[in-house]
Amino acid sequence: MAVITVLGAGVMGTALTFPAADNDNDLRLVGTHLDDDIIQSCKEQRIHPRLKRRIHDNVKPYFYTEIAQAMQDTEVIVLGVNSRGVHWAAQALAPYLHPGHIVMMVTKGMESNDGELAILPDVLRANLPEGIRDQISFAAIGGPSIAGELAARHHTNVVFVSRNPDILPGLQRLFATSYYHVWSSTDMVGVEVCVALKNPIALAVGLAAGLVERKTKEQGPDVAKAQMHNYAAAIFAQGLAETAYIVNLMGGRPETVFSLPGAGDLYVTTQGGRNSRMGRLLGMGLSYSDAVEEMPGETIEGVDATIAIMPAIQTMIQSGKIDENALPLIRTMHHILTRNAPVDFDFDSFFASLPMFNPPVTRN
Amino acid sequence: MAVITVLGAGVMGTALTFPAADNDNDLRLVGTHLDDDIIQSCKEQRIHPRLKRRIHDNVKPYFYTEIAQAMQDTEVIVLGVNSRGVHWAAQALAPYLHPGHIVMMVTKGMESNDGELAILPDVLRANLPEGIRDQISFAAIGGPSIAGELAARHHTNVVFVSRNPDILPGLQRLFATSYYHVWSSTDMVGVEVCVALKNPIALAVGLAAGLVERKTKEQGPDVAKAQMHNYAAAIFAQGLAETAYIVNLMGGRPETVFSLPGAGDLYVTTQGGRNSRMGRLLGMGLSYSDAVEEMPGETIEGVDATIAIMPAIQTMIQSGKIDENALPLIRTMHHILTRNAPVDFDFDSFFASLPMFNPPVTRN
Repeated sequence: MAVITVLGAGVMGTALTFPAADNDNDLRLVGTHLDDDIIQSCKEQRIHPRLKRRIHDNVKPYFYTEIAQAMQDTEVIVLGVNSRGVHWAAQALAPYLHPGHIVMMVTKGMESNDGELAILPDVLRANLPEGIRDQISFAAIGGPSIAGELAARHHTNVVFVSRNPDILPGLQRLFATSYYHVWSSTDMVGVEVCVALKNPIALAVGLAAGLVERKTKEQGPDVAKAQMHNYAAAIFAQGLAETAYIVNLMGGRPETVFSLPGAGDLYVTTQGGRNSRMGRLLGMGLSYSDAVEEMPGETIEGVDATIAIMPAIQTMIQSGKIDENALPLIRTMHHILTRNAPVDFDFDSFFASLPMFNPPVTRN
Repeated sequence: MAVITVLGAGVMGTALTFPAADNDNDLRLVGTHLDDDIIQSCKEQRIHPRLKRRIHDNVKPYFYTEIAQAMQDTEVIVLGVNSRGVHWAAQALAPYLHPGHIVMMVTKGMESNDGELAILPDVLRANLPEGIRDQISFAAIGGPSIAGELAARHHTNVVFVSRNPDILPGLQRLFATSYYHVWSSTDMVGVEVCVALKNPIALAVGLAAGLVERKTKEQGPDVAKAQMHNYAAAIFAQGLAETAYIVNLMGGRPETVFSLPGAGDLYVTTQGGRNSRMGRLLGMGLSYSDAVEEMPGETIEGVDATIAIMPAIQTMIQSGKIDENALPLIRTMHHILTRNAPVDFDFDSFFASLPMFNPPVTRN
């Protein structure tokens, strides 16, 4: 039994309280300054309004103003803010961190940092005071885990990752249940790159559904007899190849991409959600600026991640650290999202980073 | 320009005629003895009744009784029969094969052969007369390619594979178009194992949709708020791990599993089709024998493949060639399909073949 404090009362942070609370841990759910309505509802009715579910009896909700109290005697901190909140979270947590604390991130994303790519646990660490950042351990979670399904106690298989292998068995014991199956890994880079890139790739996979609708409108219902799953699948496969390329570049293990954290999580992410919906709108022919208007107030993590990583990718292509032919999918998506470029992939440029394939014969 | 004869007038063999015919090749579509109605329709109305599409002007349809004529001057033979038809096809083709012929298979499946696993191009080869089988080349196609989408000329990305690298550039040139993008590989084992196993795995992924329906019926609509994509995604990832294990065992390249032929094709196969429908029925709680009654007259390739490979897998586990912990998904599916076992996976037994993960903490 341990005291676990979750910072960020979104769906994923809150969903994680279910297995941890089922294991009789003492859970504290702290909203950010943007989560007051959620915490209010949790305090008054014990209902999480976005999960639409009763929170566990072992969970105590706290407003952000009550964070000092929520951090008392805490052993593990789960960081459930969104990718834009990591710098803020470093400041918010700093006063309360003690040597031996474990910070486990469920936040998804990457950043460009002085021309290099950075995973979020490293961004968090770099933003903590020097005195403490080397005395705490960082962990993260990868793998297919839709929050509502975990909160419903449906079988969910994930990987806990940390560069410090000593903390992993303990973390597994705190969270693993009969429905939450937790493997562990020390490939922090591999898992975190997968977690960050699944959203841009799922957005790209989602383009196919919109393209079919557009073609149906333009060319008549005969077109709709055939979907465009072949198109989506090629993007799926190229997305994995580009993820593996970046993982390899950053010193991670490409094998991680081909299991739960990469292929498994990407599969789940393509089955619905905001990134897929944005993809569909773009596939239908809307420019990005028009598509955003159709999804007011929603954070599209795939868009944020694409924009966040591109400065470093461009720098690294210029310096020769990244092969200019290795990332056609991510680069095309960046043009679609930032230059209103049309949805049009040069498929023959795919898979150039995979030496086991000989290149295609190109015909126009 | 070449003469290309397709044996088997099913949807996939026929779909392949579109890019080849668009390249001005001379295509001959030969039905099997089971395809007479299809060929009749193609001859009389130029409509393929299952593709529901007009065949290309460069395609000439032939009844099986006309095979001698269809094979005259042929350079490439595409084999489009189903997995049960490979032995028959060897006999049907034998009289017409000449040195230098290329036989390219789109048939999906594997067999158990004297306690070893065999890929279908090797089964075909072994069933051809000794005098000719070493004088022809074998090729196959892997990757996400739904027939109706290829026939609609939607972008489709595939891999042509042969142990004979010399024939690959020529094959690519015959088939590659602006919408049919063809890479090549010499990893015949890797591609063919992916092609064979995607159907059993897609069937298993499909269980999740049925499980949700069943839970909703048993426990009320509250359950239906949460789907079971996390469950499906774990099966997706474990399916790739088991495919890679078998590819490695048979001397192929596991990298092939993680791109178009494995992950890409599996993604497409989970998006619908007969295997997914069978999975859904089993997930809903029907025994396999009852589920079959709901899909009369349909060949479920995932079922055939699971049953076909299990004798060799069991023999190889007994002899220690296969680790008994490596294939929990395929073995559980075999129990579901042949012993009416309930749909119940031991998720904690997954990923044991992946050394980069430490095992989970098991709780019941």
